[in-house]
Amino acid sequence: MLPTPKKFTICAGTAEGASELNAFDNALLNAGIGNLNLLKVSSILPPGAEYAENLNIPPGTLTPTAYGSIVSEKPGELIAASVGIGFSENSFGVIMEYSGTCSAKEAEEQVIKMVEEAFKIRGLKLTRVMAKAVEHRVEKCGCAFAAVALWY
Amino acid sequence: MLPTPKKFTICAGTAEGASELNAFDNALLNAGIGNLNLLKVSSILPPGAEYAENLNIPPGTLTPTAYGSIVSEKPGELIAASVGIGFSENSFGVIMEYSGTCSAKEAEEQVIKMVEEAFKIRGLKLTRVMAKAVEHRVEKCGCAFAAVALWY
Amino acid sequence: MLPTPKKFTICAGTAEGASELNAFDNALLNAGIGNLNLLKVSSILPPGAEYAENLNIPPGTLTPTAYGSIVSEKPGELIAASVGIGFSENSFGVIMEYSGTCSAKEAEEQVIKMVEEAFKIRGLKLTRVMAKAVEHRVEKCGCAFAAVALWY
Repeated sequence: MLPTPKKFTICAGTAEGASELNAFDNALLNAGIGNLNLLKVSSILPPGAEYAENLNIPPGTLTPTAYGSIVSEKPGELIAASVGIGFSENSFGVIMEYSGTCSAKEAEEQVIKMVEEAFKIRGLKLTRVMAKAVEHRVEKCGCAFAAVALWY
Repeated sequence: MLPTPKKFTICAGTAEGASELNAFDNALLNAGIGNLNLLKVSSILPPGAEYAENLNIPPGTLTPTAYGSIVSEKPGELIAASVGIGFSENSFGVIMEYSGTCSAKEAEEQVIKMVEEAFKIRGLKLTRVMAKAVEHRVEKCGCAFAAVALWY
Repeated sequence: MLPTPKKFTICAGTAEGASELNAFDNALLNAGIGNLNLLKVSSILPPGAEYAENLNIPPGTLTPTAYGSIVSEKPGELIAASVGIGFSENSFGVIMEYSGTCSAKEAEEQVIKMVEEAFKIRGLKLTRVMAKAVEHRVEKCGCAFAAVALWY
Protein backbone atom coordinates (compact mmCIF):
# COMPACT_ATOMS: atom_id res chain seq x y z
CA MET A 1 0.00 0.00 0.00
CA LEU A 2 1.11 3.55 -0.54
CA PRO A 3 1.55 5.10 2.89
CA THR A 4 -1.40 7.21 4.02
CA PRO A 5 -0.48 10.83 4.81
CA LYS A 6 -0.42 11.82 8.49
CA LYS A 7 -0.07 15.59 8.26
CA PHE A 8 -1.54 18.41 6.27
CA THR A 9 -1.24 22.10 5.63
CA ILE A 10 -3.50 24.57 3.88
CA CYS A 11 -2.07 27.28 1.66
CA ALA A 12 -2.85 29.62 -1.21
CA GLY A 13 -1.05 31.98 -3.52
CA THR A 14 -1.36 34.19 -6.57
CA ALA A 15 1.06 35.38 -9.23
CA GLU A 16 1.65 36.68 -12.70
CA GLY A 17 3.83 34.77 -15.14
CA ALA A 18 5.11 34.99 -18.69
CA SER A 19 3.19 31.83 -19.62
CA GLU A 20 0.26 29.91 -18.14
CA LEU A 21 2.53 27.30 -16.60
CA ASN A 22 4.91 29.93 -15.23
CA ALA A 23 1.97 31.76 -13.66
CA PHE A 24 0.92 28.47 -12.06
CA ASP A 25 4.49 27.75 -10.93
CA ASN A 26 4.84 31.25 -9.52
CA ALA A 27 1.53 30.96 -7.64
CA LEU A 28 2.77 27.68 -6.11
CA LEU A 29 5.94 29.45 -4.98
CA ASN A 30 3.81 32.26 -3.55
CA ALA A 31 1.80 29.63 -1.67
CA GLY A 32 4.99 28.10 -0.32
CA ILE A 33 4.85 24.76 -2.15
CA GLY A 34 6.53 25.54 -5.46
CA ASN A 35 9.54 23.29 -5.03
CA LEU A 36 7.63 20.06 -4.49
CA ASN A 37 6.23 17.51 -6.89
CA LEU A 38 2.49 17.83 -6.41
CA LEU A 39 0.44 14.69 -7.05
CA LYS A 40 -3.17 15.80 -7.48
CA VAL A 41 -5.58 13.81 -5.30
CA SER A 42 -9.33 13.66 -4.80
CA SER A 43 -9.96 14.80 -1.78
CA ILE A 44 -10.07 13.06 1.57
CA LEU A 45 -8.28 14.14 4.74
CA PRO A 46 -7.06 10.87 6.26
CA PRO A 47 -8.37 10.12 9.75
CA GLY A 48 -6.10 11.48 12.46
CA ALA A 49 -4.08 13.70 10.12
CA GLU A 50 -2.50 16.58 12.04
CA TYR A 51 -2.29 20.19 10.98
CA ALA A 52 1.14 21.73 10.45
CA GLU A 53 1.70 25.42 9.88
CA ASN A 54 4.55 24.85 7.45
CA LEU A 55 5.79 22.12 5.20
CA ASN A 56 9.36 21.28 6.06
CA ILE A 57 10.02 18.77 3.33
CA PRO A 58 12.85 18.51 0.83
CA PRO A 59 12.48 19.86 -2.72
CA GLY A 60 11.18 17.34 -5.21
CA THR A 61 9.21 15.35 -2.62
CA LEU A 62 6.14 13.61 -4.07
CA THR A 63 3.36 15.43 -2.24
CA PRO A 64 -0.28 14.31 -2.48
CA THR A 65 -2.23 17.56 -2.81
CA ALA A 66 -5.85 18.54 -3.34
CA TYR A 67 -5.98 21.86 -5.12
CA GLY A 68 -7.97 24.31 -7.15
CA SER A 69 -6.41 26.74 -9.56
CA ILE A 70 -7.34 29.12 -12.32
CA VAL A 71 -5.21 30.84 -14.93
CA SER A 72 -6.47 33.84 -16.89
CA GLU A 73 -4.96 35.96 -19.62
CA LYS A 74 -7.74 38.58 -19.57
CA PRO A 75 -6.28 41.82 -18.16
CA GLY A 76 -8.44 43.22 -15.39
CA GLU A 77 -10.27 39.99 -14.67
CA LEU A 78 -10.68 39.04 -11.02
CA ILE A 79 -9.84 35.40 -10.35
CA ALA A 80 -9.97 33.42 -7.14
CA ALA A 81 -9.19 30.00 -5.75
CA SER A 82 -10.21 28.46 -2.47
CA VAL A 83 -9.95 25.24 -0.59
CA GLY A 84 -11.90 24.01 2.40
CA ILE A 85 -11.48 21.13 4.80
CA GLY A 86 -14.42 19.71 6.69
CA PHE A 87 -13.60 17.87 9.90
CA SER A 88 -15.66 15.17 11.55
CA GLU A 89 -15.48 14.16 15.18
CA ASN A 90 -13.77 10.78 14.94
CA SER A 91 -13.43 10.01 11.28
CA PHE A 92 -11.85 11.30 8.09
CA GLY A 93 -12.35 14.77 6.67
CA VAL A 94 -13.36 15.96 3.23
CA ILE A 95 -11.49 18.52 1.15
CA MET A 96 -13.22 20.67 -1.45
CA GLU A 97 -11.59 23.06 -3.86
CA TYR A 98 -13.00 25.79 -6.04
CA SER A 99 -11.73 28.32 -8.54
CA GLY A 100 -13.47 30.87 -10.72
CA THR A 101 -13.79 34.45 -11.85
CA CYS A 102 -14.96 35.87 -8.56
CA SER A 103 -13.67 37.34 -5.31
CA ALA A 104 -11.85 35.41 -2.61
CA LYS A 105 -14.87 35.91 -0.35
CA GLU A 106 -17.22 34.35 -2.89
CA ALA A 107 -14.81 31.48 -3.55
CA GLU A 108 -14.57 30.77 0.16
CA GLU A 109 -18.34 30.87 0.64
CA GLN A 110 -18.71 28.46 -2.28
CA VAL A 111 -16.14 26.01 -0.95
CA ILE A 112 -17.78 25.99 2.49
CA LYS A 113 -21.15 25.13 0.90
CA MET A 114 -19.44 22.33 -1.01
CA VAL A 115 -17.91 20.93 2.18
CA GLU A 116 -21.32 21.06 3.86
CA GLU A 117 -22.90 19.09 1.00
CA ALA A 118 -20.09 16.52 1.11
CA PHE A 119 -20.77 15.89 4.80
CA LYS A 120 -24.53 15.83 4.41
CA ILE A 121 -24.43 13.16 1.70
CA ARG A 122 -22.06 11.04 3.78
CA GLY A 123 -24.24 11.33 6.89
CA LEU A 124 -21.23 12.64 8.77
CA LYS A 125 -21.47 15.39 11.37
CA LEU A 126 -19.43 18.44 10.38
CA THR A 127 -17.65 19.75 13.46
CA ARG A 128 -15.45 22.43 11.91
CA VAL A 129 -14.38 23.92 8.57
CA MET A 130 -10.96 25.30 7.79
CA ALA A 131 -10.83 27.34 4.59
CA LYS A 132 -8.42 29.52 2.68
CA ALA A 133 -9.02 31.69 -0.36
CA VAL A 134 -7.09 34.15 -2.51
CA GLU A 135 -7.97 36.51 -5.31
CA HIS A 136 -5.94 38.19 -8.02
CA ARG A 137 -6.59 40.97 -10.51
CA VAL A 138 -5.02 39.79 -13.78
CA GLU A 139 -2.40 42.01 -15.38
CA LYS A 140 -1.27 39.89 -18.33
CA CYS A 141 -1.32 36.26 -17.30
CA GLY A 142 -2.32 35.51 -13.73
CA CYS A 143 -2.99 32.50 -11.56
CA ALA A 144 -4.83 31.92 -8.29
CA PHE A 145 -4.11 28.68 -6.47
CA ALA A 146 -5.31 27.12 -3.20
CA ALA A 147 -4.30 23.75 -1.82
CA VAL A 148 -4.31 21.23 0.96
CA ALA A 149 -0.99 19.40 0.87
CA LEU A 150 -0.67 16.04 2.61
CA TRP A 151 2.46 14.42 3.93
CA TYR A 152 4.03 12.27 6.60
CA MET B 1 10.25 2.38 -6.35
CA LEU B 2 6.61 3.02 -5.62
CA PRO B 3 5.03 -0.38 -5.00
CA THR B 4 3.19 -1.80 -8.02
CA PRO B 5 -0.49 -2.52 -7.34
CA LYS B 6 -1.49 -6.19 -7.02
CA LYS B 7 -5.28 -5.96 -7.01
CA PHE B 8 -7.96 -4.13 -8.92
CA THR B 9 -11.65 -3.51 -8.99
CA ILE B 10 -13.92 -2.00 -11.63
CA CYS B 11 -16.74 0.32 -10.65
CA ALA B 12 -19.00 3.09 -11.88
CA GLY B 13 -21.51 5.54 -10.52
CA THR B 14 -23.68 8.54 -11.31
CA ALA B 15 -25.06 11.40 -9.26
CA GLU B 16 -26.42 14.90 -9.11
CA GLY B 17 -24.70 17.55 -7.01
CA ALA B 18 -25.02 21.21 -6.10
CA SER B 19 -21.70 21.97 -7.83
CA GLU B 20 -19.54 20.25 -10.42
CA LEU B 21 -17.13 18.94 -7.80
CA ASN B 22 -19.97 17.78 -5.53
CA ALA B 23 -21.55 15.93 -8.47
CA PHE B 24 -18.17 14.26 -9.07
CA ASP B 25 -17.76 13.47 -5.37
CA ASN B 26 -21.28 12.07 -5.18
CA ALA B 27 -20.71 9.89 -8.26
CA LEU B 28 -17.56 8.51 -6.62
CA LEU B 29 -19.59 7.68 -3.52
CA ASN B 30 -22.22 6.03 -5.72
CA ALA B 31 -19.41 3.98 -7.33
CA GLY B 32 -18.16 2.96 -3.90
CA ILE B 33 -14.83 4.79 -3.91
CA GLY B 34 -15.76 8.23 -2.64
CA ASN B 35 -13.77 8.11 0.58
CA LEU B 36 -10.39 7.41 -0.98
CA ASN B 37 -7.72 9.70 -2.35
CA LEU B 38 -7.71 8.86 -6.05
CA LEU B 39 -4.42 9.33 -7.88
CA LYS B 40 -5.21 9.42 -11.60
CA VAL B 41 -3.01 7.05 -13.62
CA SER B 42 -2.55 6.20 -17.29
CA SER B 43 -3.61 3.12 -17.70
CA ILE B 44 -1.88 -0.22 -17.35
CA LEU B 45 -3.12 -3.20 -15.38
CA PRO B 46 0.03 -4.57 -13.74
CA PRO B 47 0.89 -8.18 -14.64
CA GLY B 48 -0.66 -10.67 -12.24
CA ALA B 49 -3.05 -8.16 -10.66
CA GLU B 50 -6.05 -9.95 -9.16
CA TYR B 51 -9.67 -8.91 -9.36
CA ALA B 52 -11.51 -8.08 -6.15
CA GLU B 53 -15.24 -7.48 -5.98
CA ASN B 54 -14.91 -4.79 -3.33
CA LEU B 55 -12.28 -2.42 -2.09
CA ASN B 56 -11.79 -2.92 1.62
CA ILE B 57 -9.33 -0.15 2.23
CA PRO B 58 -9.31 2.61 4.83
CA PRO B 59 -10.62 6.11 4.03
CA GLY B 60 -7.99 8.50 2.72
CA THR B 61 -5.84 5.74 1.18
CA LEU B 62 -3.83 6.91 -1.84
CA THR B 63 -5.41 4.82 -4.59
CA PRO B 64 -3.98 4.73 -8.13
CA THR B 65 -7.04 4.85 -10.37
CA ALA B 66 -7.71 5.01 -14.10
CA TYR B 67 -11.00 6.74 -14.68
CA GLY B 68 -13.26 8.55 -17.07
CA SER B 69 -15.82 11.09 -15.96
CA ILE B 70 -18.11 13.74 -17.34
CA VAL B 71 -20.00 16.52 -15.62
CA SER B 72 -22.88 18.35 -17.32
CA GLU B 73 -25.10 21.20 -16.26
CA LYS B 74 -27.48 20.86 -19.24
CA PRO B 75 -30.83 19.57 -17.93
CA GLY B 76 -32.05 16.60 -19.95
CA GLU B 77 -28.65 15.72 -21.40
CA LEU B 78 -27.68 12.06 -21.39
CA ILE B 79 -24.14 11.51 -20.19
CA ALA B 80 -22.16 8.30 -19.83
CA ALA B 81 -18.83 7.01 -18.63
CA SER B 82 -17.20 3.67 -19.19
CA VAL B 83 -14.01 1.86 -18.48
CA GLY B 84 -12.62 -1.30 -20.05
CA ILE B 85 -9.78 -3.62 -19.14
CA GLY B 86 -8.13 -5.77 -21.77
CA PHE B 87 -6.36 -8.87 -20.49
CA SER B 88 -3.49 -10.67 -22.15
CA GLU B 89 -2.50 -14.28 -21.55
CA ASN B 90 0.72 -13.85 -19.56
CA SER B 91 1.44 -10.17 -19.50
CA PHE B 92 0.03 -6.87 -18.36
CA GLY B 93 -3.38 -5.52 -19.27
CA VAL B 94 -4.48 -2.19 -20.70
CA ILE B 95 -7.19 0.04 -19.27
CA MET B 96 -9.18 2.45 -21.40
CA GLU B 97 -11.72 4.97 -20.22
CA TYR B 98 -14.32 7.00 -22.07
CA SER B 99 -16.94 9.58 -21.27
CA GLY B 100 -19.31 11.56 -23.42
CA THR B 101 -22.86 12.64 -24.15
CA CYS B 102 -24.16 9.23 -25.13
CA SER B 103 -25.75 6.10 -23.68
CA ALA B 104 -23.96 3.61 -21.46
CA LYS B 105 -24.20 1.07 -24.27
CA GLU B 106 -22.45 3.42 -26.72
CA ALA B 107 -19.79 4.31 -24.15
CA GLU B 108 -19.11 0.64 -23.48
CA GLU B 109 -18.88 -0.19 -27.19
CA GLN B 110 -16.45 2.70 -27.61
CA VAL B 111 -14.24 1.63 -24.74
CA ILE B 112 -14.08 -1.94 -26.03
CA LYS B 113 -12.93 -0.67 -29.45
CA MET B 114 -10.29 1.41 -27.69
CA VAL B 115 -9.03 -1.62 -25.76
CA GLU B 116 -8.85 -3.61 -28.99
CA GLU B 117 -6.75 -0.89 -30.66
CA ALA B 118 -4.46 -0.70 -27.64
CA PHE B 119 -3.76 -4.44 -27.90
CA LYS B 120 -3.37 -4.41 -31.68
CA ILE B 121 -0.73 -1.69 -31.60
CA ARG B 122 1.18 -3.52 -28.86
CA GLY B 123 1.07 -6.82 -30.76
CA LEU B 124 -0.50 -8.42 -27.70
CA LYS B 125 -3.21 -11.05 -27.94
CA LEU B 126 -6.42 -9.91 -26.27
CA THR B 127 -7.89 -12.80 -24.33
CA ARG B 128 -10.75 -11.08 -22.54
CA VAL B 129 -12.31 -7.68 -21.92
CA MET B 130 -14.00 -6.59 -18.70
CA ALA B 131 -16.04 -3.41 -19.05
CA LYS B 132 -18.42 -1.29 -17.04
CA ALA B 133 -20.53 1.66 -18.11
CA VAL B 134 -23.14 3.94 -16.61
CA GLU B 135 -25.42 6.65 -17.96
CA HIS B 136 -27.25 9.52 -16.35
CA ARG B 137 -29.96 11.94 -17.46
CA VAL B 138 -28.92 15.34 -16.11
CA GLU B 139 -31.35 17.16 -13.85
CA LYS B 140 -29.34 20.22 -12.82
CA CYS B 141 -25.72 19.21 -12.45
CA GLY B 142 -24.91 15.56 -13.05
CA CYS B 143 -21.85 13.35 -13.25
CA ALA B 144 -21.11 9.93 -14.72
CA PHE B 145 -17.95 8.21 -13.56
CA ALA B 146 -16.30 4.86 -14.31
CA ALA B 147 -13.02 3.60 -12.88
CA VAL B 148 -10.51 0.86 -12.40
CA ALA B 149 -8.99 1.27 -8.96
CA LEU B 150 -5.67 -0.40 -8.18
CA TRP B 151 -4.36 -1.41 -4.81
CA TYR B 152 -2.31 -3.89 -2.84
CA MET C 1 7.02 9.65 2.98
CA LEU C 2 6.68 8.58 -0.61
CA PRO C 3 10.20 7.83 -1.84
CA THR C 4 11.78 10.66 -3.82
CA PRO C 5 12.81 9.66 -7.34
CA LYS C 6 16.54 9.26 -7.99
CA LYS C 7 16.66 8.90 -11.77
CA PHE C 8 15.08 10.55 -14.75
CA THR C 9 14.77 10.26 -18.49
CA ILE C 10 13.47 12.67 -21.11
CA CYS C 11 11.40 11.41 -24.02
CA ALA C 12 8.84 12.42 -26.61
CA GLY C 13 6.60 10.81 -29.19
CA THR C 14 3.81 11.38 -31.68
CA ALA C 15 1.08 9.18 -33.11
CA GLU C 16 -2.30 8.88 -34.74
CA GLY C 17 -5.08 6.93 -33.06
CA ALA C 18 -8.69 5.96 -33.61
CA SER C 19 -9.74 7.98 -30.57
CA GLU C 20 -8.22 10.78 -28.50
CA LEU C 21 -7.12 8.40 -25.76
CA ASN C 22 -5.72 5.90 -28.25
CA ALA C 23 -3.73 8.68 -29.93
CA PHE C 24 -2.36 9.61 -26.50
CA ASP C 25 -1.63 5.96 -25.67
CA ASN C 26 0.08 5.47 -29.03
CA ALA C 27 2.20 8.60 -28.56
CA LEU C 28 3.29 7.28 -25.16
CA LEU C 29 4.30 4.00 -26.81
CA ASN C 30 6.18 5.97 -29.47
CA ALA C 31 7.97 7.83 -26.68
CA GLY C 32 8.89 4.54 -25.02
CA ILE C 33 6.77 4.86 -21.87
CA GLY C 34 3.42 3.47 -22.98
CA ASN C 35 3.37 0.46 -20.68
CA LEU C 36 3.78 2.34 -17.42
CA ASN C 37 1.27 3.94 -15.10
CA LEU C 38 2.11 7.62 -15.37
CA LEU C 39 1.34 9.75 -12.31
CA LYS C 40 1.32 13.38 -13.44
CA VAL C 41 3.50 15.61 -11.26
CA SER C 42 4.31 19.29 -11.07
CA SER C 43 7.48 19.64 -11.90
CA ILE C 44 10.66 19.47 -9.87
CA LEU C 45 13.74 17.41 -10.65
CA PRO C 46 14.83 16.09 -7.25
CA PRO C 47 18.35 17.09 -6.16
CA GLY C 48 20.95 14.58 -7.28
CA ALA C 49 18.66 12.76 -9.70
CA GLU C 50 20.69 10.98 -12.38
CA TYR C 51 19.97 10.85 -16.08
CA ALA C 52 19.30 7.47 -17.68
CA GLU C 53 19.04 6.94 -21.42
CA ASN C 54 16.32 4.32 -21.07
CA LEU C 55 13.73 3.30 -18.55
CA ASN C 56 14.19 -0.32 -17.66
CA ILE C 57 11.21 -0.71 -15.41
CA PRO C 58 8.45 -3.32 -15.38
CA PRO C 59 5.08 -2.67 -17.05
CA GLY C 60 2.49 -1.14 -14.78
CA THR C 61 5.04 0.62 -12.56
CA LEU C 62 3.70 3.82 -10.97
CA THR C 63 5.92 6.43 -12.59
CA PRO C 64 5.90 10.08 -11.51
CA THR C 65 6.04 12.02 -14.76
CA ALA C 66 5.94 15.67 -15.79
CA TYR C 67 4.50 15.92 -19.26
CA GLY C 68 2.90 18.07 -21.88
CA SER C 69 0.59 16.72 -24.54
CA ILE C 70 -1.85 17.86 -27.16
CA VAL C 71 -4.46 15.94 -29.13
CA SER C 72 -6.03 17.34 -32.29
CA GLU C 73 -8.67 16.07 -34.65
CA LYS C 74 -8.13 18.82 -37.25
CA PRO C 75 -6.56 17.22 -40.34
CA GLY C 76 -3.49 19.14 -41.49
CA GLU C 77 -2.90 20.92 -38.20
CA LEU C 78 0.66 21.00 -36.90
CA ILE C 79 0.90 20.13 -33.22
CA ALA C 80 3.93 19.99 -30.95
CA ALA C 81 4.92 19.12 -27.41
CA SER C 82 8.11 19.86 -25.57
CA VAL C 83 9.65 19.46 -22.18
CA GLY C 84 12.67 21.16 -20.69
CA ILE C 85 14.74 20.56 -17.59
CA GLY C 86 16.74 23.33 -15.99
CA PHE C 87 19.68 22.24 -13.86
CA SER C 88 21.24 24.16 -11.01
CA GLU C 89 24.73 23.69 -9.67
CA ASN C 90 24.03 22.00 -6.33
CA SER C 91 20.29 21.98 -5.91
CA PHE C 92 17.12 20.70 -7.49
CA GLY C 93 16.08 21.29 -11.09
CA VAL C 94 12.85 22.59 -12.58
CA ILE C 95 10.87 20.89 -15.33
CA MET C 96 8.64 22.82 -17.70
CA GLU C 97 6.34 21.39 -20.32
CA TYR C 98 4.54 22.96 -23.25
CA SER C 99 2.20 21.90 -26.02
CA GLY C 100 0.44 23.82 -28.74
CA THR C 101 -0.32 24.21 -32.43
CA CYS C 102 3.19 25.08 -33.52
CA SER C 103 6.43 23.52 -34.68
CA ALA C 104 8.77 21.47 -32.48
CA LYS C 105 11.32 24.28 -32.78
CA GLU C 106 8.84 26.85 -31.46
CA ALA C 107 7.71 24.53 -28.67
CA GLU C 108 11.31 23.97 -27.61
CA GLU C 109 12.12 27.69 -27.66
CA GLN C 110 9.03 28.32 -25.55
CA VAL C 111 9.90 25.67 -22.99
CA ILE C 112 13.46 27.00 -22.63
CA LYS C 113 12.09 30.49 -21.93
CA MET C 114 9.78 28.97 -19.32
CA VAL C 115 12.69 27.19 -17.63
CA GLU C 116 14.66 30.44 -17.59
CA GLU C 117 11.79 32.28 -15.90
CA ALA C 118 11.39 29.48 -13.34
CA PHE C 119 15.06 29.84 -12.36
CA LYS C 120 15.00 33.63 -12.34
CA ILE C 121 12.05 33.78 -9.94
CA ARG C 122 13.71 31.24 -7.63
CA GLY C 123 17.01 33.15 -7.64
CA LEU C 124 18.74 29.97 -8.75
CA LYS C 125 21.60 29.98 -11.23
CA LEU C 126 20.73 28.00 -14.36
CA THR C 127 23.75 25.94 -15.38
CA ARG C 128 22.27 23.89 -18.19
CA VAL C 129 19.01 23.10 -20.00
CA MET C 130 18.06 19.74 -21.46
CA ALA C 131 15.07 19.87 -23.79
CA LYS C 132 13.17 17.63 -26.14
CA ALA C 133 10.40 18.47 -28.59
CA VAL C 134 8.35 16.73 -31.24
CA GLU C 135 5.86 17.83 -33.86
CA HIS C 136 3.15 16.05 -35.78
CA ARG C 137 0.98 16.89 -38.78
CA VAL C 138 -2.50 15.61 -37.92
CA GLU C 139 -4.12 13.13 -40.28
CA LYS C 140 -7.34 12.28 -38.45
CA CYS C 141 -6.64 12.24 -34.73
CA GLY C 142 -3.08 12.92 -33.66
CA CYS C 143 -1.15 13.44 -30.47
CA ALA C 144 2.19 14.99 -29.58
CA PHE C 145 3.65 14.14 -26.18
CA ALA C 146 6.83 15.06 -24.32
CA ALA C 147 7.81 13.97 -20.82
CA VAL C 148 10.32 13.74 -18.06
CA ALA C 149 9.76 10.44 -16.25
CA LEU C 150 11.14 10.01 -12.75
CA TRP C 151 12.03 6.77 -11.03
CA TYR C 152 14.33 5.00 -8.63
